[in-house]
Amino acid sequence: MFFFMNTSELIVKKRDGGSLSPEEISHLIEGYVNGSIPDYQMAAFLMAVYFKGMTDEETLALTEEMIKSGDVLDLSAIEGIKADKHSTGGVGDKTSLVICPMLSALGIKMPKMSGRGLGHTGGTIDKLESFSGLKTDIDGDSFIKQANDVGFVIAGQTAKLVPADKKLYALRDVTATVDIMPLIVSSIMSKKLASGADIIVLDVKTGSGAFMKKQEDAFELARQMVRLGQNAGRKTVAVVSDMDEPLGYAVGNALEVKEAIEVLNGQGEEGLRKLCLMLGSCAVLEAGLAKTEAEALQMLEETIDNGSALAKLAQFVKAQGGDEKAVYDPSLLPKAAIVQKLFSPFEGYVQKLDADGIGRACIGLGAGRQTKDSVIDLSVGVVLHKKLGDYVEKNECLAEIHASSEEKAEQGKKQVLDCFGFSEKRPEGRDIIKGIVK
Amino acid sequence: MFFFMNTSELIVKKRDGGSLSPEEISHLIEGYVNGSIPDYQMAAFLMAVYFKGMTDEETLALTEEMIKSGDVLDLSAIEGIKADKHSTGGVGDKTSLVICPMLSALGIKMPKMSGRGLGHTGGTIDKLESFSGLKTDIDGDSFIKQANDVGFVIAGQTAKLVPADKKLYALRDVTATVDIMPLIVSSIMSKKLASGADIIVLDVKTGSGAFMKKQEDAFELARQMVRLGQNAGRKTVAVVSDMDEPLGYAVGNALEVKEAIEVLNGQGEEGLRKLCLMLGSCAVLEAGLAKTEAEALQMLEETIDNGSALAKLAQFVKAQGGDEKAVYDPSLLPKAAIVQKLFSPFEGYVQKLDADGIGRACIGLGAGRQTKDSVIDLSVGVVLHKKLGDYVEKNECLAEIHASSEEKAEQGKKQVLDCFGFSEKRPEGRDIIKGIVK
Repeated sequence: MFFFMNTSELIVKKRDGGSLSPEEISHLIEGYVNGSIPDYQMAAFLMAVYFKGMTDEETLALTEEMIKSGDVLDLSAIEGIKADKHSTGGVGDKTSLVICPMLSALGIKMPKMSGRGLGHTGGTIDKLESFSGLKTDIDGDSFIKQANDVGFVIAGQTAKLVPADKKLYALRDVTATVDIMPLIVSSIMSKKLASGADIIVLDVKTGSGAFMKKQEDAFELARQMVRLGQNAGRKTVAVVSDMDEPLGYAVGNALEVKEAIEVLNGQGEEGLRKLCLMLGSCAVLEAGLAKTEAEALQMLEETIDNGSALAKLAQFVKAQGGDEKAVYDPSLLPKAAIVQKLFSPFEGYVQKLDADGIGRACIGLGAGRQTKDSVIDLSVGVVLHKKLGDYVEKNECLAEIHASSEEKAEQGKKQVLDCFGFSEKRPEGRDIIKGIVK
Repeated sequence: MFFFMNTSELIVKKRDGGSLSPEEISHLIEGYVNGSIPDYQMAAFLMAVYFKGMTDEETLALTEEMIKSGDVLDLSAIEGIKADKHSTGGVGDKTSLVICPMLSALGIKMPKMSGRGLGHTGGTIDKLESFSGLKTDIDGDSFIKQANDVGFVIAGQTAKLVPADKKLYALRDVTATVDIMPLIVSSIMSKKLASGADIIVLDVKTGSGAFMKKQEDAFELARQMVRLGQNAGRKTVAVVSDMDEPLGYAVGNALEVKEAIEVLNGQGEEGLRKLCLMLGSCAVLEAGLAKTEAEALQMLEETIDNGSALAKLAQFVKAQGGDEKAVYDPSLLPKAAIVQKLFSPFEGYVQKLDADGIGRACIGLGAGRQTKDSVIDLSVGVVLHKKLGDYVEKNECLAEIHASSEEKAEQGKKQVLDCFGFSEKRPEGRDIIKGIVK
């Protein structure tokens, strides 16, 4: 039966607090992607969603329609259990570089699509290019083959995956409709579902450096994404983690790769290591390889202790055409011309360490993109020496600034110092893991 | 000083409940009219206004910006006090055809821009074309001359008057953002202010056949428009009037002209006559020609009793090239081929008379436009014989259907009958005037 669906009436329905049927959502998304529904009607609809929200059913229908707009990866030729991990983004997040090697060392396949970054630092794809020669432009057959042979593969996300999201996001970005829970959920989950993994582990950041400033919003986002993933038939679990300060010590592309290698060597900052293990343990448990969290954590630690995770990273770098020697000798990674230390003019406990501010300092140094077309400098960034709760003596080193010039280093030092706040009283202890949602 | 204003940030500001400065509103409207702000950003902004409203200051700034987008009429060459009247629209509204002759007979100048109708029946311009030969395409000099010589002139509204409104309205129409008080206020008032009159009399309709279904909304619209007009330095007053049933007996272009002539002859339906006198008295009082409402009403009634208002109408029709004989002999106006009576199959008091339904029946007969390009039939329409509260015997005449064919007349009878509802109990009395806002 043919029936005419009036886009204006669908906007009215949402504006007045109604719920749209899957057919109505299909009309909107199909029409928007094929151009029969113009940007201005979609913009009005999105703003109505800002005020009136969407039900779980609407969000699932929206996600499924977005997936239909493009290719869906067929991972059936990859043997075993396939897992994927997604972070909502933050400063200094290099967990993928730790988790993929650990999990593939345990036999869980990690066929991953990743993006380039816009903002603070590069994305995972940019970071990986710190390995000289490494390519992420991989055809479908090689992708499947490497997943089977190595256990993990990371390719640049193609434009054919969920093109509706690309078009919608560009519109949301200029119409004050980015910050809408069901749209965030469908944007993230459509890409994860289209990427075809059996297990989806989500890292939802919360705190001053995260998109979700409030912990309750982060938990709500986590719950909605987990519910949606499970309703779509995938094993889905989320870790809500702290982003009140940068993750780990290093911020900047090659510097973060180096820190990830440190973790795989059994070193690295404690919070970073703990988060990587927790995210990994979620996948291990969902894969049924362990019965308890403690068992899963122990299995993951063993991949560090016995060197199998580090070996996987080297195998991966080589398979993608990179110089795997840098895995064992990080001094071969890109190095900045200038390294300056920032000494503290104050003393006391670090009670504030503004993640966004450190991110902005790194953009200033050239580590991140200001626009899509910016060329980034993989070598530069900031290595923190002190984190929240640490005691700092006067003239003690707060951070190292890795820069391309003395001038930029000086500017970076000023910006980084502004990110620190001190107090006489020791701040309360904090846990990087805020909770698990499954 | 140059400063960059980010449109997205202005959308966020409104979305989050903030008030925009006049400069910010200027940025939006100027940018929208010159094309630098795209439809989709304006659509998101308008939907945010739907939820968050606008302050009086914002609405005034919006109105002033809209006026700046086009020409402003200079009426300084017209001697004496200039008044204008606007109705928010309803079924069977022919008050302008009564008020303009009455007021100009009292020396108040009525230099009026009017539109064509879309929907129920034509607009005032269409109705006037019932006078054979009458033209409303009038150049500026002739407009001024006729206002001075005759006292009133009605010209078709030029596209140069408030082009921003035309562009905004077209967008609102397809983005579910028509029904927003400050946008309605600025749309109406920008055109009235740009038209240059000293006195603005507003007829705000309320009831099932009006845009404002609820009386409280109509009063709020009236208050906002009056406040805005006064803040812009014009004498502004509003009458809130009933539109639960059509105004007067006649609906349809030539039929309405005929009914207006009846009122100017001292006859006509009581409610219609009362509303015309009340609207007229507001102008007389604002012009300072009378001290009390009673005095103003008496002056207006005299223009009917002494024939000066009817003479003004004839003078006006002649001045605009029309056949003024029809003013004294309405049988010369366009007549429908078929006139059929609708007899009541029921008896009782009329307790419902759906104005919108009568309007739709008239569209079916060809009296109104379904699209902008429809050609309308000036002769057809409906003449009611019974109105709300009237007692109807079985087989008594409810209405006359004026149609171009027997088939259309039969269809019209069915539709008109469906508009009537009857009850055994006499409904409560009702006053066409709900209140005055000044």
